Amino acid sequence: MPRIRHIEKHFTAGNFVRDVVIGMSDGLTVPFALAAGLSGAVQDTRLIVVGGLAEIAAGSIAMGLGGYLAARGDAEHYDQERAREQREVKEIPEEEMAEVSRVFQDYGITAEQSAPMVEALTRRPEAWVDFMMRYELGLEPPDPTRAVTSAATIAGSYVVGGLVPLSPYVALGNARAGLVISAIVTLAALGIFGYIKGRFTGTRPLRSMSQTMVIGGLAAAAAFVLAKLIA
Amino acid sequence: MPRIRHIEKHFTAGNFVRDVVIGMSDGLTVPFALAAGLSGAVQDTRLIVVGGLAEIAAGSIAMGLGGYLAARGDAEHYDQERAREQREVKEIPEEEMAEVSRVFQDYGITAEQSAPMVEALTRRPEAWVDFMMRYELGLEPPDPTRAVTSAATIAGSYVVGGLVPLSPYVALGNARAGLVISAIVTLAALGIFGYIKGRFTGTRPLRSMSQTMVIGGLAAAAAFVLAKLIA
Repeated sequence: MPRIRHIEKHFTAGNFVRDVVIGMSDGLTVPFALAAGLSGAVQDTRLIVVGGLAEIAAGSIAMGLGGYLAARGDAEHYDQERAREQREVKEIPEEEMAEVSRVFQDYGITAEQSAPMVEALTRRPEAWVDFMMRYELGLEPPDPTRAVTSAATIAGSYVVGGLVPLSPYVALGNARAGLVISAIVTLAALGIFGYIKGRFTGTRPLRSMSQTMVIGGLAAAAAFVLAKLIA
Repeated sequence: MPRIRHIEKHFTAGNFVRDVVIGMSDGLTVPFALAAGLSGAVQDTRLIVVGGLAEIAAGSIAMGLGGYLAARGDAEHYDQERAREQREVKEIPEEEMAEVSRVFQDYGITAEQSAPMVEALTRRPEAWVDFMMRYELGLEPPDPTRAVTSAATIAGSYVVGGLVPLSPYVALGNARAGLVISAIVTLAALGIFGYIKGRFTGTRPLRSMSQTMVIGGLAAAAAFVLAKLIA
């Protein structure tokens, strides 16, 4: 099955890429927008950098730990559902056989037409359980190492992304100049990131590029205007 | 199919709940942690509130627009893959029939046993395409209204969550007292939120409660210590 294998491979590489995308798109966007907002309210670049670093610490921990717990929750949910299916296949096999036929009836396949298949599954209980997990419940077996890798990838990408918009403030020591250079550097980084992301996810790269730049620009503009208005 | 219907219903309600969870867990956590961090560096509560509101604006836009584009991207991906399957079912039906059998061979079902099913599918091309989308590619049909609803739900939940930790600074006008009350109020809110989230997602409520509180507390502590060190 070259195509299925190809797709599954795509999704596996996709997990790492997706985690980088999740971490970096927020890491480039939110600290950038926050620093822009603060620069609308204060002149002291030290404060802008402190605020930006505090945001990076908070955001990377919240996203990384959130990703860890989400992945672990998915794995536990899978195990629970699998145990339930194993019990049901053993205790109420007729009911489970009927469920397999019902899955196929939605596609106009009669119980008679699916009978040889259902029969074959009942002879291999483990394959039957796997079948129910995927085709009745739509659940994929989780990767046991995924929770930690996912957390570290998301958090690391957030930190890397977040340092980009802050570095001009550190280097220039001037809020206004820092904001201008930070906007140029970060929008360029968002554009490159969006372009590469588009190539990985199958969106047209130029469209993905403009999307990430618009999100970053809008978030920064909103934060700046809000801070100006109330400061 | 009472159980399948039950599960699909669960997932549909799950989309809204999941969006609220996504928006609110970050909304309660990151502005709380950022404000805590800023209060480790400055005494001026006006600045802490400006920073916090700038963060809420940036975070809600980044997450909301991000959610919108992700949902729209999923829908487009589904449409593209569906068009491809429709072409393949028409142009290379033998190849597609072989793909259906191969899906089942993983479960120990021989080509002979699945033959009546494959035969039945070829007589209903639309059902066949639906079958391939779900069982070969593992893709669910997207809800067309989901992108906008998802964006609004995530962003709104972020704003609501983010105002909780900021209000004590506004009410008290004192950075130190604001931090203490903000930590108490926000950790309580995170606990309640985590408990309810646990009931919705199937994690044990008390465990979910302690998890959200630990994430929020760790993020705030890291932001505070970092800001203290460099301010």
